[in-house]
Amino acid sequence: MSLIQRYRGYLPVGPSTPIISLGEGATPLVAADRLRAVAGIPPRVLLKCEGTLPTGSFKDRGMTMAISKAVELGARGVMCASTGNTAASAAAYAAKADLPCVVLIPGGAIALGKLSQACTHGARVLAVKGNFDDCLPIVVELTEKGDFALVNSINPYRLQGQKTAAFEICDALGCAPTYHAIPVGNAGNISAYWMGFTEYREAGVTRTTPRMLGFQAAGAAPMVLGHPVARPETIATAIRIGNPANWEKARRAIDESGGRIDSVTDDEILEAYEMLARLEGVFCEPASAASVAGVLKLSRAGYFDGADDAVVTCTLTGHGLKDPDTAMKRAERPKEIEATSEAVLRAVGLGEKMEALTT
Amino acid sequence: MSLIQRYRGYLPVGPSTPIISLGEGATPLVAADRLRAVAGIPPRVLLKCEGTLPTGSFKDRGMTMAISKAVELGARGVMCASTGNTAASAAAYAAKADLPCVVLIPGGAIALGKLSQACTHGARVLAVKGNFDDCLPIVVELTEKGDFALVNSINPYRLQGQKTAAFEICDALGCAPTYHAIPVGNAGNISAYWMGFTEYREAGVTRTTPRMLGFQAAGAAPMVLGHPVARPETIATAIRIGNPANWEKARRAIDESGGRIDSVTDDEILEAYEMLARLEGVFCEPASAASVAGVLKLSRAGYFDGADDAVVTCTLTGHGLKDPDTAMKRAERPKEIEATSEAVLRAVGLGEKMEALTT
Repeated sequence: MSLIQRYRGYLPVGPSTPIISLGEGATPLVAADRLRAVAGIPPRVLLKCEGTLPTGSFKDRGMTMAISKAVELGARGVMCASTGNTAASAAAYAAKADLPCVVLIPGGAIALGKLSQACTHGARVLAVKGNFDDCLPIVVELTEKGDFALVNSINPYRLQGQKTAAFEICDALGCAPTYHAIPVGNAGNISAYWMGFTEYREAGVTRTTPRMLGFQAAGAAPMVLGHPVARPETIATAIRIGNPANWEKARRAIDESGGRIDSVTDDEILEAYEMLARLEGVFCEPASAASVAGVLKLSRAGYFDGADDAVVTCTLTGHGLKDPDTAMKRAERPKEIEATSEAVLRAVGLGEKMEALTT
Repeated sequence: MSLIQRYRGYLPVGPSTPIISLGEGATPLVAADRLRAVAGIPPRVLLKCEGTLPTGSFKDRGMTMAISKAVELGARGVMCASTGNTAASAAAYAAKADLPCVVLIPGGAIALGKLSQACTHGARVLAVKGNFDDCLPIVVELTEKGDFALVNSINPYRLQGQKTAAFEICDALGCAPTYHAIPVGNAGNISAYWMGFTEYREAGVTRTTPRMLGFQAAGAAPMVLGHPVARPETIATAIRIGNPANWEKARRAIDESGGRIDSVTDDEILEAYEMLARLEGVFCEPASAASVAGVLKLSRAGYFDGADDAVVTCTLTGHGLKDPDTAMKRAERPKEIEATSEAVLRAVGLGEKMEALTT
């Protein structure tokens, strides 16, 4: 069942809305018990693994809504500015809907895997000389004037779709989590989750809402600093944004929920990225790990002290395969050996004591 | 709910089997109506998109079983030979289970994304001078002698887990499909699907079983040729295997089901790969597209003539992000432009007739 079918009652769709779906939704919520134990995090930690969505990131939730509505409203195509994941998702859903897709990306510093997707799905990808914040105004101008639909997260249908991740978390837990941790780039997703958690409480499905914990990369932390960042820099390209479109909405989500916004360094992000892969078997893109890096930081600072009965859910926004370069740069290269069992034993450090493996 | 929990009654697990899960299962079954129309395929075509599993390929279905059983049986580690996807999956589930993982890969010609996964999950990856068929005997020898568990598909628990994809297809359709098309490499998956379809019929869940249509790459088609291939060659690295471990099981699946085994060229594979991305919004790895390439080939040859009421389900074994290199080689590179709306309009070919976009 598609996400729109499952949560139809909470979404602005009608009987005449076509459902453009790639089978998105129902992503895993994985208990991170090893990470919790190793890091000594007081609350239970659960990972919302959005990398298993069709194009490998959470963007698909909003895109099934945005493209379905674009078709319903008669758009002749779609357009977006994107650091990568939005482009991949827009291109895929536009292909499914048989709509042309134009994507503006900032030139340079885009992960290869992300570019490959938009191109393969047949989108017209244009590399603009500038950063993300230079791309968006162009898309806004052109879509306001023409009949291409804008599918960036300032498209309100995007956030409508994205809020369903909060529904899924509550449905899986049987209640709302105590805290929800999430990476913050353009600040749309944290706003969408807050909308979802709030709507479920208002509908009586849950009785509480979580404290929203938003984490920006230290080199791209306008909301922490209180002012836009002209040249955002971080290894977490998916959240390398200096002037978030949904700044105010995100601010409200944090304030209303009693949560907080904080920053994590690239080193902290990569530490969390590696812990997730090695302790939990979850391979996410660097930006995703910002949520867990933030939980680790707050935990070390005592923020969760006494919260042993609490639950913190962490959104991992995209799959590690989105950025194989970062993975390979950090990973040990495979060792070349001869095709013999002795060579294998030697290579794994058991050459002199074969019995360690063979008894 | 994990795959093991969902299909427990059909799997060799007991109350004392620990469930090592990354939230695998319940992958999308996507109608390929545009592809069907463009290519004039008589039956309805549905895509079983296994790239949305946690590590990006169908291997996770078998690995949750193999690793869970390895833990139950007291293994001190796991070992496999792999062209990439098995390694990624084994490394991820072993990490989750806190077991060391040793992976033997054939040196060279492995997609970057696949290697990056096993390494990132902390597996000890060894590049053996030789091809896949040189790696497997070493793993068999070492795991027979020692107390590491072998987790290649000759591990019977692997096929047990993989058969659940057939269950999911039948559950989604409310019946068995008429045909099931699937890429064939080591021939484990086609055997597993046949087991699943057969068990569901025997249990009375379905009344029929599909004809199994297996497709090998033309440069690695031992089952079509009737003899092992010493130096298998194909762009579809995930099925570049010259001497399948499950040859006999696969032969039986094809014969008993009244299906067939055939080969598809790399060009046919890449044609299907591109059609899936551009018409259906589904980005799969090249090997995955062999199933759809085969359906296109059979359709053109009249195999499905008169089967307009039939349903053919096609397994897409892995995500396109597993092999970004192939994608980028074929995709048009993004065009570099200045950061102005005029430059965008010019680049999409609307420079002289801006009204096409703006009226």
